[in-house]
Amino acid sequence: MTDVEIHCNEEKGKKFIKSIERKHFLFSFITSYTETSEIPGITVAGADPDFIKFTPPADAEFIHYGYCKSIDIIPMTPDGKPTPALLTRASLKTANIPQVVINAGCKISPKLPYLETSLPFGKNISTEPGLEQSSVTHAIDYGKIVGKTLASCTNCLVIGESIPGGTTTALAVMKGLGIDARVSSSMPKNPQSLKNEVVEKALRRSDSKEPYDVIANVGDPMIPFVAGMLSTASEITNVILAGGTQMAAVLALAKTTGYDENRVAIGTTSYITGDSNANLLEVIESISDIPVLSVNPQLADSKFDGLRAYSEGFVKEGAGAGGSMIASLLKTGANSKKLLNIIEDEYTRITT
Amino acid sequence: MTDVEIHCNEEKGKKFIKSIERKHFLFSFITSYTETSEIPGITVAGADPDFIKFTPPADAEFIHYGYCKSIDIIPMTPDGKPTPALLTRASLKTANIPQVVINAGCKISPKLPYLETSLPFGKNISTEPGLEQSSVTHAIDYGKIVGKTLASCTNCLVIGESIPGGTTTALAVMKGLGIDARVSSSMPKNPQSLKNEVVEKALRRSDSKEPYDVIANVGDPMIPFVAGMLSTASEITNVILAGGTQMAAVLALAKTTGYDENRVAIGTTSYITGDSNANLLEVIESISDIPVLSVNPQLADSKFDGLRAYSEGFVKEGAGAGGSMIASLLKTGANSKKLLNIIEDEYTRITT
Repeated sequence: MTDVEIHCNEEKGKKFIKSIERKHFLFSFITSYTETSEIPGITVAGADPDFIKFTPPADAEFIHYGYCKSIDIIPMTPDGKPTPALLTRASLKTANIPQVVINAGCKISPKLPYLETSLPFGKNISTEPGLEQSSVTHAIDYGKIVGKTLASCTNCLVIGESIPGGTTTALAVMKGLGIDARVSSSMPKNPQSLKNEVVEKALRRSDSKEPYDVIANVGDPMIPFVAGMLSTASEITNVILAGGTQMAAVLALAKTTGYDENRVAIGTTSYITGDSNANLLEVIESISDIPVLSVNPQLADSKFDGLRAYSEGFVKEGAGAGGSMIASLLKTGANSKKLLNIIEDEYTRITT
Repeated sequence: MTDVEIHCNEEKGKKFIKSIERKHFLFSFITSYTETSEIPGITVAGADPDFIKFTPPADAEFIHYGYCKSIDIIPMTPDGKPTPALLTRASLKTANIPQVVINAGCKISPKLPYLETSLPFGKNISTEPGLEQSSVTHAIDYGKIVGKTLASCTNCLVIGESIPGGTTTALAVMKGLGIDARVSSSMPKNPQSLKNEVVEKALRRSDSKEPYDVIANVGDPMIPFVAGMLSTASEITNVILAGGTQMAAVLALAKTTGYDENRVAIGTTSYITGDSNANLLEVIESISDIPVLSVNPQLADSKFDGLRAYSEGFVKEGAGAGGSMIASLLKTGANSKKLLNIIEDEYTRITT
């Protein structure tokens, strides 16, 4: 029917899709920050090291306005590949899917109305614990409140995120919880050895396997906040966790906070599910019996270099792009060829 | 059918009720502030002058948690009559209506997740302009964004507010726009002469009848923000403006920002529509051809002094109480006698 592929639990995936096709969707976008992103070489989010902290608000502004307010340019890789927020915006706009921005520990607040959670940003886990214990509880509690409210207003809550350096904290959280994950990255040459080094160093600080301790030691504010959201939201409605590695870390914590396995799916791009350097599907299967949905945005067929690059290992996913594309296709019934045209129009608009 | 009475345009009122009965409701609660509330004797919101700025966040916290976090007590009049947020909470809870708190210029932020708008609080209009021109535009623009998002998620958006001193700024705005309004108040002896004095003094600063100038000179942040919300929300869904005088001021400004008259109703208590010292129905009719819905919460029949006092001229309305009760009755199909029992249970809970 649609260009959405189902992995892991196929039967649950079919049922999940059936229950949300042509229904109401709501996109929530968690903007957050960890100083782990300031380790040189660890992330490509933001063209310039000084700009990293502007990436989450700039992504949020781009999705909403179609341009950024906190910075003059659109977040890009140093060689000009635009943020995946481009895919998110095009997908949500064409399907008329409303969006809510949530500030869960940014250094810079976005210049639009957003849900404030009063969470501090995360610290650099290579040198100190990422979060205070009280922030972990606060994040989960506030996530539960927000998840309940938003879920009460839709048939499918899509949760995306923007947190530079977030794959490293996600990797650390999973390793800390005993899950063997290899992570995807927005860089074609995934700086795996640097990430592993940071993760090992951070994990050496504590022996505790208690989930809240692990999050406090090596996590970021996004993970416990979204785990809290998932916990209450999945009791009420369907939830798409839009992302790869980072949403796997959320699921790993959510085993502790609780959630309804029958109303959750991971939604991502085929660049992630097909990434031979990562093992997302295995990781998800080891954590939870839920379906993983993927979409192939056909960017390899694009007439634009900047978009083809996504399919060549750049960017791949982020800013809830995969989940938004899936939501868009399922809401409108369009195919991914048509969505590609809309994405190309958006690309043309921002590059001319 | 229900215990909801229709005033002004009866036919539109019937149609409005029919289109939202048993449907999905979403309650939005605008917390705001004007230093006008610091003029001695002008408001009874907050038991103590130093506590006035805590009233809006405390109301929001009470509606959500059932207790306050920013202060140790529940907002009450000096002689112990509880905030109308009690009625709001009981009504929303029993009908399972989700709620979103919006901070539109508070001095103190509520201790729960809330939509942040980055608006400054209003100044004391007796001594200086209430808002900068840029804040008026900002409030309307952000109100439009929030209104669009929330309206996209419900069949009926209920908008309530908590802004101490807000009836005085509302009166000033209406007078400034050429509308002859007499205002209700949360005090039995409405300090009308003091309010009029403040209004006259504030209006003497400027001759402009241009709506944005009037708001900047004598308004507060809530009025332009809610006018912006109404403008976009009424294009998408039904809107109940939950309140009396202050929502009349919103409507007066909304003539400029634009809205769909066929999808808006005022929702308030019969204590307001029946208040012989005020003239709400005349005022609304002079501004717009929309229905006014009222509910009689039967508090005169309550077994508790503190609740009977509401019907004797104390409190009367506030914190979106009237609109919330109406939404609750229309969503559940309950009658106001049943709602009174629920309100009494809530009253018992907080007083024992």
